[in-house]
Formats: sequence, structure tokens, C-alpha cells
Amino acid sequence: MRITTIGFDADDTLWHNESFFRLTQARFLDLLADHAAPDHLEDRLLAAERRNLGHYGYGVKGFTLSMIETAIEVTEGRVPAAVIAEIVAAGRELLAHPLDLLPHAREAVEALSASHRLVLITKGDLLHQERKLAQSGLGAWFHGVEIVSEKTPETYARAFGRHGNGADRALMVGNSMKSDVLPAIAAGGWGVHVPHGLEWELERAEPPAGHPRFRALPDLGQLPGLVADLG
Amino acid sequence: MRITTIGFDADDTLWHNESFFRLTQARFLDLLADHAAPDHLEDRLLAAERRNLGHYGYGVKGFTLSMIETAIEVTEGRVPAAVIAEIVAAGRELLAHPLDLLPHAREAVEALSASHRLVLITKGDLLHQERKLAQSGLGAWFHGVEIVSEKTPETYARAFGRHGNGADRALMVGNSMKSDVLPAIAAGGWGVHVPHGLEWELERAEPPAGHPRFRALPDLGQLPGLVADLG
Repeated sequence: MRITTIGFDADDTLWHNESFFRLTQARFLDLLADHAAPDHLEDRLLAAERRNLGHYGYGVKGFTLSMIETAIEVTEGRVPAAVIAEIVAAGRELLAHPLDLLPHAREAVEALSASHRLVLITKGDLLHQERKLAQSGLGAWFHGVEIVSEKTPETYARAFGRHGNGADRALMVGNSMKSDVLPAIAAGGWGVHVPHGLEWELERAEPPAGHPRFRALPDLGQLPGLVADLG
Repeated sequence: MRITTIGFDADDTLWHNESFFRLTQARFLDLLADHAAPDHLEDRLLAAERRNLGHYGYGVKGFTLSMIETAIEVTEGRVPAAVIAEIVAAGRELLAHPLDLLPHAREAVEALSASHRLVLITKGDLLHQERKLAQSGLGAWFHGVEIVSEKTPETYARAFGRHGNGADRALMVGNSMKSDVLPAIAAGGWGVHVPHGLEWELERAEPPAGHPRFRALPDLGQLPGLVADLG
């Protein structure tokens, strides 16, 4: 069946994201350097993020709260308020960082919008994701935008049902095997992995090697060609 | 023109919300009672919420971060980490509070779903709003759910275009004059105000007295009758 609809993930697929989180995390480690070894701290922060995901969902606000919680934990309540204030400020700067498009993102979106319906499907804080899309200048190319709390096969079935002709005529492209590729394939669509290099621990998953609707590309520059080949 | 679609606000329209925020805020005032007078503290917290709205958007996570920021501010950086930990815990309990439907919410939704397309249109944290809708048991009655970062006339035009026959054949019901009633009327629809009694300072606005598409009701029990009268 001909592909009519293409779903794009946003963070680390169209624009940089994880690298900004890493910079914020480095600042956090630096602030708490006197209280715990860096690798221990990273583990504790990751454990807090994992534990809090069901409460806070994805995004910078929850990450900031997890950093605050970890700072209190690892210092056994001795962290000075001035350090907490710096963590709050670091979170706010992360929300305000300028948008940095990935190579070929604009060309791929523009080229494919001429022949396919495009849908942006992304997790994260509602306001932050909307603001990034506005800053990206790519908004006009998208037929629909879905900011979701989790990416499951049902998420893709619903999004491609609403904005296209169903998941079996859709292709999803993204940097996360776990959130973009596997559930889109499970919904009956194509899953195209474009790795970003930096990946958040909680987004890791094994590739569905040999699956007929799985493809991997080194960057978005090759996406229009792949879509043309698939027909 | 006959009304085909009814939009419902969620927080303090279908279920209690502000009262839980007030309880959390009382706990916050209590925690900081040694550092500032209650009314001064409330003013500082409200100022932080207002200042941070553009960064954080609506919802519990941003409210928690504003409480933390205010605690640091009013103590000039002397607040103990144990108090910050209590604020983080209070925010998390606010996210987890059990859902408490408002009187007549279930009957009104059920009754109107037989004759109209219903859309839930709400601000707040994505995951938290989805979870509350699931807990409410009302999800199945709604044709669509829109969790949005802001409620403007464009928000209503889009939501009623997507899930109904446009804003001029829609009616929006909610407790916020500013977010539910006025922008829905500005979009060309009806605006029905059902006051909750407790209102967040940042949601206040004057009623559009005498506007032909404005109505006020004491509770949701009278909504099906009003909709029938309007035809």
C-alpha cells in the first residue's frame, strides 16, 4: 500500500535536544561536585528520572524537579538553597535555549510536504514543544501536530488515523528506537530510525533487525529518496 | 444555527481542582510560617506563578517550581533543603490526589452525549490531565480531547473545527470567564459560565454582560435544559 503520511519525531530528529540536557546535567554535576562522585550522581539522577516518569511525564519541568530531588538526596538534606536556585535557573535556561535544527531537517520536511501529509508526533511539555515548533519555522509544512504523553502503538494508530489514512499507510521517522520506530511498526506502519548519536538512557531499545517495515538512515537527507523507493 | 458540539472545561468544571491547589498552598504557607507573613507569602507566590507562566505553562509541575523559587526568595536563600523536599512532596501529592467529580457532572455529560458531540478542552500538564480524565470515568462520552497550552479564540476555532461543525455551532461550558467563556464567544460560539466558587487569581475576568451568546448557570444540572432551549 502506498505511503500517504509521514510522521516526524521532533527532539533529536528535527532539532537538537539531548545535547542541551547533557549540558544542563553537567552543570548539575558541577554544582554538586563536593557532595558525590560524578558517576554516582548520574546514576542517582537517572534513577530519580525513571522513578518520577509516571508522576511527571516527559520534559524539562520534570527533569528540573528530579535534579532538585537528587540534590537533596545525595547531600542528605544539606544542599544549600543557593544550589537549588541554580538548578531551577538551569532548568529555566534549558526551556529557553535557542532552537538548533539538525542537518537536512528543513530540506527533508519541505521536499516531502509536496507529496505527503506530514504529522509531527512528539512527547514533552506542551508549551515547550509548541514553542520549539514555532521557533523551528517548520510549522507550516505540517498537516497536524500531536504532543503526546507517551508513544505507544495506539498513539500512532490514533495520530495516523486522524491526520492520514491509518498507520498501515504511514511511515514514522525518529531517533528513538523505543518510542518512534518500534511502536509505529507495531501499529502497522513503517519505522525509520535516524540515530542522533546522543541518546537518553530511558529511550534505548534493540532494533527490530530484519523486520520488513524497518529501515535505518544515517541522516534525514536520505529520507525523501527512501520514501520514493518505498512507493 | 443549531448547536451540534459542546465543549467542556475540565478542572473545576467537571471535577475539583482549585481546592486541592489551595490545600497545597496552605501547606506551603505553613512550612514557611517562620519566614514571612501569610499574605506577603501568597503575594510572592502569585507573582512567581505569573512571572513563570510563560516559561512553564499551566499545571502542577510549574506550580511546584514556583513554590520552590518563592521559598528560596522569601528566606533570602536560607530555606533548609528539608523544606524544599516537603514542597516537592506536596507537589507530587497534588499530582496524585484522587479525582472528585463535581455535582451533576456525570449526568450532564451522559445526557448531552446522546444528542451532541462532546469535546473536552483543558489546559495543564499533559500526563496529569489524561490521568484525571481516565480516573473520572467520563472519557468514553467524549468525541475528542484537546489538552492545550493556552485557551484563545483560535484554540476554540481549531478544536470545534476538528471535532464538530465549527465554533459557530458550538457551546463551551466552564468555570473560567477568562479561558472558557470569553474566547469561545470571541470565536463565534456560545459561552456558558458555571462558577466554581474558588477561582485562581490569574483566571479572573469580567463577564460579557448582555452578550447574546453568553449564559450563566449555577451548576451543570441545568446545562441539558439550557442546551435544549437554545436548540
